[in-house]
Amino acid sequence: MARIERGTRRGKAGAAVGSVAAAGGTSDPAAADSAGQSAPVRAMIDAVLPCVDGGRFAVKAIAGEAFEVHAHAFADGHEQIRVVLRWCAERESVWHEVAMQAEGNDVWRAAFVPPVPGRYLYEVCAWVDAFRSWRDGFARRIEPDDLRLALRAGAMLLRAAAARSASASGRDSGGDGRQLRHYAEALEQAAVGEDLLAMQAAGLDQSLAELADAHPDRSHAAHSAPLPLTVDRVRARFSTWYEMFPRSASPVLGRHGTLRDVEARLPYVAAMGFDVLYLPPIHPIGRTYRKGPNNTLQAAPGDVGSPWAIGADEGGHKEILPELGTIEDFRRLVAQAREHGLEIALDMAFQCSPDHPYVTTRPQWFQRRPDGSVQYAENPPKRYQDIYPLNFDSEDWQALWAELKSVFEHWIAEGVMIFRVDNPHTKAFAFWEWVIAEIKHQHPNVLFLSEAFTRPKLMYRLAKLGFSQSYTYFTWRNTRAELTEYFTELGAEPQRLFFRANVWPNTPDILNEHLHGAPRSVFASRLILAATLSASYGIYGPAYELMENAPLKPGSEEYLDSEKYQLRHWPIEQPDSLSGLVAMVNRIRRENPALQTQEGLRFMATDNEQLIAYAKRHPGEDNLILAVVNLDPHHRQSCWLELDLAWMGIDAARPFQVDDLLAQHSYEWHGARNFIILDPDVMPAHIFKVRRHPGTETDPAALR
Amino acid sequence: MARIERGTRRGKAGAAVGSVAAAGGTSDPAAADSAGQSAPVRAMIDAVLPCVDGGRFAVKAIAGEAFEVHAHAFADGHEQIRVVLRWCAERESVWHEVAMQAEGNDVWRAAFVPPVPGRYLYEVCAWVDAFRSWRDGFARRIEPDDLRLALRAGAMLLRAAAARSASASGRDSGGDGRQLRHYAEALEQAAVGEDLLAMQAAGLDQSLAELADAHPDRSHAAHSAPLPLTVDRVRARFSTWYEMFPRSASPVLGRHGTLRDVEARLPYVAAMGFDVLYLPPIHPIGRTYRKGPNNTLQAAPGDVGSPWAIGADEGGHKEILPELGTIEDFRRLVAQAREHGLEIALDMAFQCSPDHPYVTTRPQWFQRRPDGSVQYAENPPKRYQDIYPLNFDSEDWQALWAELKSVFEHWIAEGVMIFRVDNPHTKAFAFWEWVIAEIKHQHPNVLFLSEAFTRPKLMYRLAKLGFSQSYTYFTWRNTRAELTEYFTELGAEPQRLFFRANVWPNTPDILNEHLHGAPRSVFASRLILAATLSASYGIYGPAYELMENAPLKPGSEEYLDSEKYQLRHWPIEQPDSLSGLVAMVNRIRRENPALQTQEGLRFMATDNEQLIAYAKRHPGEDNLILAVVNLDPHHRQSCWLELDLAWMGIDAARPFQVDDLLAQHSYEWHGARNFIILDPDVMPAHIFKVRRHPGTETDPAALR
Repeated sequence: MARIERGTRRGKAGAAVGSVAAAGGTSDPAAADSAGQSAPVRAMIDAVLPCVDGGRFAVKAIAGEAFEVHAHAFADGHEQIRVVLRWCAERESVWHEVAMQAEGNDVWRAAFVPPVPGRYLYEVCAWVDAFRSWRDGFARRIEPDDLRLALRAGAMLLRAAAARSASASGRDSGGDGRQLRHYAEALEQAAVGEDLLAMQAAGLDQSLAELADAHPDRSHAAHSAPLPLTVDRVRARFSTWYEMFPRSASPVLGRHGTLRDVEARLPYVAAMGFDVLYLPPIHPIGRTYRKGPNNTLQAAPGDVGSPWAIGADEGGHKEILPELGTIEDFRRLVAQAREHGLEIALDMAFQCSPDHPYVTTRPQWFQRRPDGSVQYAENPPKRYQDIYPLNFDSEDWQALWAELKSVFEHWIAEGVMIFRVDNPHTKAFAFWEWVIAEIKHQHPNVLFLSEAFTRPKLMYRLAKLGFSQSYTYFTWRNTRAELTEYFTELGAEPQRLFFRANVWPNTPDILNEHLHGAPRSVFASRLILAATLSASYGIYGPAYELMENAPLKPGSEEYLDSEKYQLRHWPIEQPDSLSGLVAMVNRIRRENPALQTQEGLRFMATDNEQLIAYAKRHPGEDNLILAVVNLDPHHRQSCWLELDLAWMGIDAARPFQVDDLLAQHSYEWHGARNFIILDPDVMPAHIFKVRRHPGTETDPAALR
Repeated sequence: MARIERGTRRGKAGAAVGSVAAAGGTSDPAAADSAGQSAPVRAMIDAVLPCVDGGRFAVKAIAGEAFEVHAHAFADGHEQIRVVLRWCAERESVWHEVAMQAEGNDVWRAAFVPPVPGRYLYEVCAWVDAFRSWRDGFARRIEPDDLRLALRAGAMLLRAAAARSASASGRDSGGDGRQLRHYAEALEQAAVGEDLLAMQAAGLDQSLAELADAHPDRSHAAHSAPLPLTVDRVRARFSTWYEMFPRSASPVLGRHGTLRDVEARLPYVAAMGFDVLYLPPIHPIGRTYRKGPNNTLQAAPGDVGSPWAIGADEGGHKEILPELGTIEDFRRLVAQAREHGLEIALDMAFQCSPDHPYVTTRPQWFQRRPDGSVQYAENPPKRYQDIYPLNFDSEDWQALWAELKSVFEHWIAEGVMIFRVDNPHTKAFAFWEWVIAEIKHQHPNVLFLSEAFTRPKLMYRLAKLGFSQSYTYFTWRNTRAELTEYFTELGAEPQRLFFRANVWPNTPDILNEHLHGAPRSVFASRLILAATLSASYGIYGPAYELMENAPLKPGSEEYLDSEKYQLRHWPIEQPDSLSGLVAMVNRIRRENPALQTQEGLRFMATDNEQLIAYAKRHPGEDNLILAVVNLDPHHRQSCWLELDLAWMGIDAARPFQVDDLLAQHSYEWHGARNFIILDPDVMPAHIFKVRRHPGTETDPAALR
């Protein structure tokens, strides 16, 4: 076993003092305290926060928003330390510095605003500051002889600072050096005088202190190891998704929908307030083992098959199913969507139908069975013979990975900046870490949504590896206890540092039992929960707003007549559509910053478990939302709500106002305890905007 | 800024696929997943616990006791992984392996017993296990053709295992290889048969599974980075300290005590049940600026001075004050103490009186003032002219550090294996990390107690750097709320992994206000709190058992007539001495493993804040203690105690027995709620041994 030197005493030190016995010191932010130094480093950085797994993975932040860093730093003895936060955009390699402020208990704080998306590094540097320490002691000295000696010591420090200033390059240090020497002489002169007050004044001169601060001796500074930070655009934090099958977008019953039909539907989607339009795979669909309606094994002629059985004679992951249209149609769609404030997100499902061109051109990318046939997907005894998984650790994996990367690049070149990745947990995790880093290095605005419905630790790991957003268990969390526990977990560290939830009340794969035959109130309450508990959410429509609620069979999460396997025709103008409520909820989200962040969620107590209540506040803006949702689909429910007024920043002695943004009613409340009644047949929820100081706020129109 | 490759794809991989863009990946336990591998590593190790600061510092454990490790490990896809814990004693460089067991939620568990004190490393290794995965799928296959192909695939795996077995060295793999090939043939034969049951039996053969398990393909295994573990002897976890000034040990009033007097007092100390006898510095004491009684600035002739003003003509840190005796006397003392079950602990105060030989022989080890004089200790405007601090970052620091190390080595050679280090927070922390590692590498049984009464983060850092035990804030924690909060903090992670508390109701420096003029009940309750809340505690005696309670002045923590500055004569045979209670409490500690660990502490609710209640249980042994202490020195107090029976492992439906080990009374209790009354004039505490199932336990003598 190799002996490795301790983090704090590398280089000459160990050799000079003797063999260094300590082994096993893994490097971490704190380990670099004095690496490579030949003299002891006295400042210590015990922690730099936030930090994921000691810096193995990046924390996530948003461009243009302050990123706050805390450091635990101190030195032995009683001297003063100074601490700075350093940060650097990876592409620029220029380090910036911000002084950190002491917050007590040896905790230091600073923030910086990463200006644009990209990868950044941040680190902390701390040193025992000789002049600050001197000044701190000097201010407490009272005896003339003691002051005299101290002034001489101070002058020596200033002359050393002047020498450093002279050898420093790149700033007007000539002037500073002269000035520092001037101050040194002043201290020396005061030291030979008799005037106690003059001595004190000379030593404590404020301009002197500032000048000395600008020329510290940092040769023995402690440096934490740089920590990675992934900075995304705002949509990574706040996004509202609408999923639809282009082939069901035709206004004409029975006709295969096209990308032009999707284009025609953009105003409808935009009017509901969505900003991401996500399309299931649009590629050619395999014919071998094609599935029929309702996932039957035998497709009849004319059956359209599953869009996730990717690849046919017409091409693979870079081509478009001819029935949907052409690449020109796609380009038009991307451009038109942008006009409507919508981004097109594509599905990336890295698997092949037996007809995918890769199967013949790159047979080495597939596993073989002992009889030489290609290994189809299976979960014994079930077989999925229409799907061939790619073998991510085949002998030729480098070429495979490079090709898959080129698929992303192909669609990025066509204007797609958001990818929803299908089942990433069944592919090599190392591939995701590599490909996401590669793509984001070239295209920092690209976002990746992980569609991994798997075990918790794998979902979190995928987020650590680079996915910008992640699907969640929200779909299966229905009771107050389940929702409270789950969103409390998502808001806790460390996961809140890297895992951005994107919650869905339904997906084409999941019609939760809660929605089986469910009335309007359930669709409304699940929509409101998703939209207010999470800064990013999505619905699979028009199934959702049309309240599609029929399962394939009781107990199944599959839809009856699922458009995964057949065309559907959606009467979107149906008068009882939820689209109006969707539009209202999404407008409330846009107008209230508290609903645009996954921070600042707090559940409030109610004495009726059918009623869930929670407040959301924005860390930076004065915006506070309180939602109360009736989880009972059928009955009016009431409760006493017990608010945590201190957390809400409300003076318990003064009245405050809550404006229901759904019902457009205002109430004046007094104190923590308030009565709530919600009738699911009218509206299963309140979304209150809380006005802490009614009458003093600037917004004149609380109600619209 | 240097680009560094990602942890998971170093080496050929990155180059083959393209430039690797991700930067800033700090190595950590999880980072080594596939370092140096040329093909993707699919198993992942997301966490290895326990772990301090990502492995920068060692976790602490005890020789001969199981050390438990958890790993979070998984792979992409649905295949089976296997996980092993690997550990190695640093001096032996031989790695041992223990299979880890799946505990659900991708958490794996294993333990090992480090046999002797020393430094160890532990790491985790995980791999996707081809045969286990094959067998898992095989067990679910039902169609004959599917089984046939699977048998052929299984045979291929076995032949590969046989090939690995042939190339492996160091075990009887020839036999295993033959056996594996034999099994491969059996599978192939079954595959050409018609008998479904025979096919299944061949594939699922248990002996085959075990043989295949012994020959896994670990070439693509993930390895966590090794984590350091410091293993100490039991006394690091459980120790009972008695501090005394040798110069006050004389039985004759006014005569300077000697080491021979200390020897004569060993039976007294041993009878009270202590196992560590800690002596303040025994070195020659400086004469320049010697302090007089009660810390007066002018010492009169004959004043003995402070033992912490170390160094005089007679020598420094390696010499003994002639008035105390000779090195032969010291050796006798160490040997005699051992006979009494006591270890001698020495005080290491690395500072010098102006008369210390270093001041003239090594002037470069001291800071100079501008007038050329040596810088004395100061905290402006206070001056401590009798103390010269050593300058740990002088130009000649290597020689200084080496010399200080030799001081430890000198006393180790004289049989001292425990050092109480004075004010370590005012010396270079890098020095402590270095010197403790150096000493423990040569002498793994040596223990270091950190006497740092400073800010929390510095105290914890010193423990991380290597101190075996640490002084605490216990001395200043008197109310129920204070004690509950503080001991809850000490028992929480991460600190419980590296910080072993040693709590003291008094020290020569600290007569807490709570003890000023305090009655016997306070000395008794503080003793019982220290002895039952903490596995290690100490008292400064005979001041404590003789209930010395006079401060230098009101509000001061200094003793009146402190023996730090003068000789004292202690009438240890005084009839009202607490020594009997001390002996009883220490015997209870020795007999109850629950009181010998800092784990397993739980506070219990009482409805009277003057009464604090807590239970302690041992993680391994069936021993449960419940202490209730009356914090009111003057009044009888009563309460309803609400026990957490589930935590205590008590069946709420059955009666249980509590034996008061102090009062030697037994009670039968039913349920969680029990009445307590404690009269401080009789005994301010109960220390109950809880007998969960009275009548069924083996210990026949509950009461002594």
